[in-house]
Amino acid sequence: MSKKRFIKLYRGENRMAEKIVVIGGVAAGTKTAAKIKRENSKAEVVIITKDAHISYAGCGLPYYIGGVIEEERELVVKTPEDFKLVTGIDVFTKHEAVKINKEEKNVEVKDLTTEEMKIFPYDKLILATGATPFVPPIEGKNLSGVFSVRTVSDALKIREMVDNGAVKKAVVVGGGFIGLEVAENLHERGIGVALVELIDHILPPFDEEVALYAQNYMCEEGINIYTREKVLSLVGDEKVKKVVTDKREIEADLVIMSVGVRPNINIAKEIGVEIGVTGAIAVNEHMETNIKDIYAVGDCAEHVNLVTGKPAWYPMGSTANKMGRVAGINIGSEGKDTLKGVLGTTVVKLFKLNAAKTGLSERDAKKAGFEVETALVPANDKAHYYPGYREIITKLIVDKNTHRVLGAQVVGEGVVDKPIDIIATAITFDAKVEDLEKLDLAYAPPFSMAMSSTIVAASVLTNKLTGRVKGIGPIALKNRLSELQIVDTRDEGSFMIGTIPGAINIPSGEIYMRADELDKEKETVLVCKLGKNAYLAYIKLKELGFEDIKILDGGMNAYPFERE
Amino acid sequence: MSKKRFIKLYRGENRMAEKIVVIGGVAAGTKTAAKIKRENSKAEVVIITKDAHISYAGCGLPYYIGGVIEEERELVVKTPEDFKLVTGIDVFTKHEAVKINKEEKNVEVKDLTTEEMKIFPYDKLILATGATPFVPPIEGKNLSGVFSVRTVSDALKIREMVDNGAVKKAVVVGGGFIGLEVAENLHERGIGVALVELIDHILPPFDEEVALYAQNYMCEEGINIYTREKVLSLVGDEKVKKVVTDKREIEADLVIMSVGVRPNINIAKEIGVEIGVTGAIAVNEHMETNIKDIYAVGDCAEHVNLVTGKPAWYPMGSTANKMGRVAGINIGSEGKDTLKGVLGTTVVKLFKLNAAKTGLSERDAKKAGFEVETALVPANDKAHYYPGYREIITKLIVDKNTHRVLGAQVVGEGVVDKPIDIIATAITFDAKVEDLEKLDLAYAPPFSMAMSSTIVAASVLTNKLTGRVKGIGPIALKNRLSELQIVDTRDEGSFMIGTIPGAINIPSGEIYMRADELDKEKETVLVCKLGKNAYLAYIKLKELGFEDIKILDGGMNAYPFERE
Repeated sequence: MSKKRFIKLYRGENRMAEKIVVIGGVAAGTKTAAKIKRENSKAEVVIITKDAHISYAGCGLPYYIGGVIEEERELVVKTPEDFKLVTGIDVFTKHEAVKINKEEKNVEVKDLTTEEMKIFPYDKLILATGATPFVPPIEGKNLSGVFSVRTVSDALKIREMVDNGAVKKAVVVGGGFIGLEVAENLHERGIGVALVELIDHILPPFDEEVALYAQNYMCEEGINIYTREKVLSLVGDEKVKKVVTDKREIEADLVIMSVGVRPNINIAKEIGVEIGVTGAIAVNEHMETNIKDIYAVGDCAEHVNLVTGKPAWYPMGSTANKMGRVAGINIGSEGKDTLKGVLGTTVVKLFKLNAAKTGLSERDAKKAGFEVETALVPANDKAHYYPGYREIITKLIVDKNTHRVLGAQVVGEGVVDKPIDIIATAITFDAKVEDLEKLDLAYAPPFSMAMSSTIVAASVLTNKLTGRVKGIGPIALKNRLSELQIVDTRDEGSFMIGTIPGAINIPSGEIYMRADELDKEKETVLVCKLGKNAYLAYIKLKELGFEDIKILDGGMNAYPFERE
Repeated sequence: MSKKRFIKLYRGENRMAEKIVVIGGVAAGTKTAAKIKRENSKAEVVIITKDAHISYAGCGLPYYIGGVIEEERELVVKTPEDFKLVTGIDVFTKHEAVKINKEEKNVEVKDLTTEEMKIFPYDKLILATGATPFVPPIEGKNLSGVFSVRTVSDALKIREMVDNGAVKKAVVVGGGFIGLEVAENLHERGIGVALVELIDHILPPFDEEVALYAQNYMCEEGINIYTREKVLSLVGDEKVKKVVTDKREIEADLVIMSVGVRPNINIAKEIGVEIGVTGAIAVNEHMETNIKDIYAVGDCAEHVNLVTGKPAWYPMGSTANKMGRVAGINIGSEGKDTLKGVLGTTVVKLFKLNAAKTGLSERDAKKAGFEVETALVPANDKAHYYPGYREIITKLIVDKNTHRVLGAQVVGEGVVDKPIDIIATAITFDAKVEDLEKLDLAYAPPFSMAMSSTIVAASVLTNKLTGRVKGIGPIALKNRLSELQIVDTRDEGSFMIGTIPGAINIPSGEIYMRADELDKEKETVLVCKLGKNAYLAYIKLKELGFEDIKILDGGMNAYPFERE
């Protein structure tokens, strides 16, 4: 069957109007299209999408599976009909863009319902092709009951299985945000959930001690987490029955593959659109590709990391919307709006625990060549006397030489999105840690401590940078337990309930009197709940001539105790 | 009785140690003292305070009255004994500093229990004398049942009256934060509460439309609010019975005077410490006064407003702590730490409504000589499909010429402290509104919209600055109702339920077809719920040649409808 015979030309309503074609109709595509039309109401804008839905809430899918979001319609921000009515943009759902003819400036599109081919001429073309879940090439990946979670259709099918009681045991492969959110939501539906992660800990973008804090929490909530474990195959006949890893076999009626996504770049690559080092489409700060009149936005396009100034790829809805607005202004009114870069700011809710991150992790900062200093500081999210306050732990990462803030992670049951957004804003303006310390943030007991968690963390880090105090990270301490003299500076009661293996107990108030119980020559680590008592003991021991002393960063709560 | 005969010299434990005297023992005083001692453990630090308590949670007092904070001990961060044990600092409670001898470098102190006089020599003196509620000189102000809310003792007495059932009706005089918080907490205890405010609206630092939003909310919750009303006298014999204003008499068993605080500067003024234009003690960025070795911190000291660069006075616990740390570092280790200024960032919870502010209000910005543009933009605090999302309204104030962000106010049932802290951080770094639009903030449905409220507000303001759209404020609209052609662009159902007086209804989808119902020559205002439909209609009417059109800033929810 020759394509040509079926090709129809899409003319639109006005042959003379500027013609804009957008490939992709989720966040970035619809945002770009709508903004162009608002800037230039005479333009004819069409959206082409393979999907049955447009403008849906991709980030809401795990919550639909869990029933937190009850109705399918809540996921779909706009139907194509409503979208047309409000914006005047024609949407072609179940239409696949199969080829771009860059010389002729048109796109060949296949109607997936009729198999008919159509030609869409363009003056400007916007690639908003998104990203697709990567499914590793393992045996059994096509069995029934194996899903990714990317589209509304995925979520509908999974929810249906769960609603029908067809799922008793589920395995989630991959410990990133979507995998963890789905694990939580399945668990809340009464399903036994195991999660398998290839690397050392869940939440791969986070540093180990923060990720382990979240991991222990997830385990306590009842998710079985297996890290450093590789899925080899999925077994079953027709329907999946179990997951085989390099260490065990796990029964499963449902398997969620969630090991990451890859940008959809094929249609772009074929015509010579430049692909960046991250594997996504390279764009400049105006969202232009290397080919004139072709733009790329959203999950298919590459970004610049504002801290390193280097290419990075963060497929996120928040960034997609910003790229869409910039492209829309530039195309719709020949503006020169820019998006200089992003920080990869993210947040996730895991049961009652929240974890957020912005900028570089300690690991990434070192990889990028920075000499770093870090602080890991527990604090409350609200005044300690106001009911309902919760603990959060802030990790700050700064450049030791310039004191510039490079990144942060905040984890805990308390509010984490506020401090991470504050720090993300500060990093955007090249803040130093001393700047963070002096921020004038909103304080009232129901909202914050008088010294907010960010300010406290910055103060601790300043103390480290100026040599007032030395710290040791919880992972480093755990790895060197046998070599160190560890002093638990809390009261005896707390000590008796539980402490770091090998620690002796000298409450900070008694440290002057009892310092002779310690070996002055030995490398000593002071620990307490939050770090404050250890800091007070540190000052006293310094005064008494102790030289090789450190305090445990993050206090007892950040220490990765073994689960029983 | 001659003072001299009773004077004792306080020598401390070590005559050779550097002697530090701190006058005042709440937030700034204790923070400074503790930081000095940590920096220089050999220093002898004493705190002198009139109060019976130190280091108490002043901002928690309204919540103690309401029983949200149950126990008195939760209000007191540290007892003097605990404080001494942990820090090594001697605290003299119920001791009043009566005179500073700057030449001899000592302070004359009266023991309020024994009436004995004591002399405290100092090498460095820190004034942390705080502020005192201003009570206007009206008749009856000394009646029983009339209180300010500043100290733990005040709160204890009020709580006791409430607990004993002695209060049926209360009047709060003053619509600032403390007054409103006390009003809420009394109301929650089942007491009938009226609030009297001298100016046009409660929340004096806020702009009128934002303040009125909060005011209507408080009224709906059952607080009787009387604005533009002056309290003339309090009436009763021994116990207060009613409040007489210039418009009415209000029965009351309890009167809370909360019309503001004044810095305690007398002891400083007497020896020639410079008082700033705000009436508080002038300090440089190191917290030094004009007199060598005398510092001032906390509510008695003046600040610099980071936006105007001019003196300002914001008596707040968060600022007090920062000033204390800076002074502590500079005194304790001869550092040169600085606090360049503050933004007056504040937040208050009023029942389920939250209101926050940073930087300049529109009114203050104009007063400071800025030509301003503003946006008033409703948005949700979380994804609209995630259960529990709430509306907030963001007001942004920017310099029309430079686009620099000057201030912001956020009000609503949703999260307001996060956006205000983001904007406060941005203002600290001289952000332009275009910078706000591009911030990479944390997004996940339980925490934010994909386009966060701050980004949406910045986009609307950018649209106004670039001339894409013109707006009219809700107060201005209300004042000009009869002159304007008002078009409600919502659907007919919403229009029927209620609209702006005089508005006609043309849903934005029908505006092309029905534009001829409008008078093209007349100044036209488009209104809708949030502003989006009005914006779409605006674009279409512009296309049709309408010139004098505006949209209602903040949408219907920000319009100050009359209460029935």
